[in-house]
Amino acid sequence: MEYNKSAPKGMRDILPLELSQREKVLEIIKSSYAKFGFMQIETPCVEDLRLLTSKSGGDNEKLIYKILKRGEKLDLNDTELCDLGLRYDLTVPLVRYYANNIGQLPTVFKSMQIGNVWRAERPQKGRYRQFVQCDIDIIGQEGYLAEVELINATSYALRQVGISEFTIKLNDRRLLKSIANYCGYSETQVDKVFIILDKLDKIGIDGVKTELLTVGSQDCCDKLINFVEQVNNSSDKLSAVKQILADNIDDEILNWLNTIYTICSQTSDSKVEIDITLVRGMNYYTGTIFEISSPLSSGSIAGGGRYDEMLGKLLNRKVCACGFSIGFERIISLLDFSRFSSDCEKVAYILDKGLNIKELTQLLIKTNEIRQTKICDILYRINNFSYQVQQLKEQGYTIYLVDSNQERLID
Amino acid sequence: MEYNKSAPKGMRDILPLELSQREKVLEIIKSSYAKFGFMQIETPCVEDLRLLTSKSGGDNEKLIYKILKRGEKLDLNDTELCDLGLRYDLTVPLVRYYANNIGQLPTVFKSMQIGNVWRAERPQKGRYRQFVQCDIDIIGQEGYLAEVELINATSYALRQVGISEFTIKLNDRRLLKSIANYCGYSETQVDKVFIILDKLDKIGIDGVKTELLTVGSQDCCDKLINFVEQVNNSSDKLSAVKQILADNIDDEILNWLNTIYTICSQTSDSKVEIDITLVRGMNYYTGTIFEISSPLSSGSIAGGGRYDEMLGKLLNRKVCACGFSIGFERIISLLDFSRFSSDCEKVAYILDKGLNIKELTQLLIKTNEIRQTKICDILYRINNFSYQVQQLKEQGYTIYLVDSNQERLID
Repeated sequence: MEYNKSAPKGMRDILPLELSQREKVLEIIKSSYAKFGFMQIETPCVEDLRLLTSKSGGDNEKLIYKILKRGEKLDLNDTELCDLGLRYDLTVPLVRYYANNIGQLPTVFKSMQIGNVWRAERPQKGRYRQFVQCDIDIIGQEGYLAEVELINATSYALRQVGISEFTIKLNDRRLLKSIANYCGYSETQVDKVFIILDKLDKIGIDGVKTELLTVGSQDCCDKLINFVEQVNNSSDKLSAVKQILADNIDDEILNWLNTIYTICSQTSDSKVEIDITLVRGMNYYTGTIFEISSPLSSGSIAGGGRYDEMLGKLLNRKVCACGFSIGFERIISLLDFSRFSSDCEKVAYILDKGLNIKELTQLLIKTNEIRQTKICDILYRINNFSYQVQQLKEQGYTIYLVDSNQERLID
Repeated sequence: MEYNKSAPKGMRDILPLELSQREKVLEIIKSSYAKFGFMQIETPCVEDLRLLTSKSGGDNEKLIYKILKRGEKLDLNDTELCDLGLRYDLTVPLVRYYANNIGQLPTVFKSMQIGNVWRAERPQKGRYRQFVQCDIDIIGQEGYLAEVELINATSYALRQVGISEFTIKLNDRRLLKSIANYCGYSETQVDKVFIILDKLDKIGIDGVKTELLTVGSQDCCDKLINFVEQVNNSSDKLSAVKQILADNIDDEILNWLNTIYTICSQTSDSKVEIDITLVRGMNYYTGTIFEISSPLSSGSIAGGGRYDEMLGKLLNRKVCACGFSIGFERIISLLDFSRFSSDCEKVAYILDKGLNIKELTQLLIKTNEIRQTKICDILYRINNFSYQVQQLKEQGYTIYLVDSNQERLID
């Protein structure tokens, strides 16, 4: 039988050099978040399919890898062949985790979760069907302090890994809804309008116009496009919003957004701006939404928001929650790894097979001592010696050839 | 709809304290192995079902979580509903990885792989359906140096995490086969005899006797039991084996085992012994097999061996390979975490809601400075203030209550 040597379609093997870079970046992200009091948790990669398909995951629910039921004779007429699935994000599992372990977690729970997620998306360059997400979430913290801390912690983590040029964009789902209502869209149209507006980066303003006409009237569309253009041309966006919407917006929403904007501008060391076209894909967001964009990347490098309704489904009482997720795979592709400190010193001993057991034993005792402070490898000489030396040099090893009791440095 | 808050059956959520302990141990294991020149790799959690069921995984192949095919209308009369599965170990994926990436890997490849594996076993105390394995493997190294390095590296890693009392047990599948042949078992009976012998720890010598009679004759059984007892009562086991088997054993096998025994005894700082009843479960082993046992644990805490045939299936030429795996979940349950160094200093600021935006901004700037050297959390005061303080103290925080411009240390 012929086996396929490749990783499954859309997934990949990670080579040692790349993995060591990924591990270093994850280490920095973890310790950065820890500085802000976030505590790391872990949930299983597998969750109950009913939870995964409970309408919190948006389009991701269509991309679930489903796991065949076990332990019972499958009736092939039974459409319920599966009971478990691989998680497509870390937020749905976090919510279940919090509900499951609430008695053993702090009242205000600052969670950090890093792990693989799976989505059966059409494979494309730089996007994989298994990829790493890094989420922080604050559960049970009333007020805007959660947003401020999430934004500050994420900015800090990004700067620690070496990304310093970026912009934090802020918006609020409640504001988006007020805008849509003001433009004449009905409640049932609002979600569709958001999805179209979210594509602005990809399809441009003309694309948005065309798609908006499939949802509502020409009048609604014109009003929305005009609104966006007027606000975006203004130097003080929130004042412009207030001026146009007047009584169609709750002042509290604008004050909320303005407060977060003001505090983050002064405490995060980063550029902050209001973006009324920011939508974020997931339909579980209920309030503030935010995103980080970088001139180095076309898409966003981090995104998140407030989701105050999601925990209620499992706890039968409202618990507020807010989260931020770094696009780990995207930032990895942006980083310059030459600035990362190199590993500790590396020494390799290549043995001629002539060594007897006693000589080998002596050398092994010596390598064990060297390993107190250095990386030390010990290998037999292979036929293609110069190739062996070249490979070890590429890995940064200082190389000695050992021949009976003699050591010779290979330059 | 009512959702289940628990993790899927047999899987579990890991709480922050336990996860921080697991992460520390993994960090020590990784840096220990790195000292020996092992390079970390990563493979997808998901593999092609044909690879997973290619008879390398032994009984684990019965425990695979299978993933439903996607992207095509499933014919319910089609028995091939699945094309992917979750990996049940790290060795099968490593072999595929090496074959897939051979051009980009060193000629002698020292691999370290740490990750989750999944087995749909009957749930029982301390055993989970998702659990972590830590494997090191040396591929392409001729001779016994691979065994010696694997054993030394694993002993070193165990001592680094604080496990110092253990015994390394050595055996060889070729020796086991010679013993079985000597006792009169045919080629087709040998594997079954191994499986029974492997249960010695669990079912005792009488249990083994009973089960052996289901496979071969009373004569074979008596001969095997006598052999085991004679060798085990001898002070020099390999000499006893040689004496009994005489021409029925290849001297090279005994010399091989004796050399590894001698070198490891002198270089690993650990107790080493020959155990002719050691079998190891997987049927891909072809030569040396080894295991580490500890008086603290009934089962083994690490196990491995040589598997020189497995890569041939994918590469159409023989490449020798040898691996060792730490039972991570088992050693975690044995460790005393009080000896691990604690986190860095922790400070928490609890805010009275009375703070205005300017005061909050000032405090946030201050916390950012504190985070240069310490963990610093900032939270609103909750109604049950004393409970909040108690929770933070349990986490090791020094706590300040901030009221407008005043800070008060909470003792």
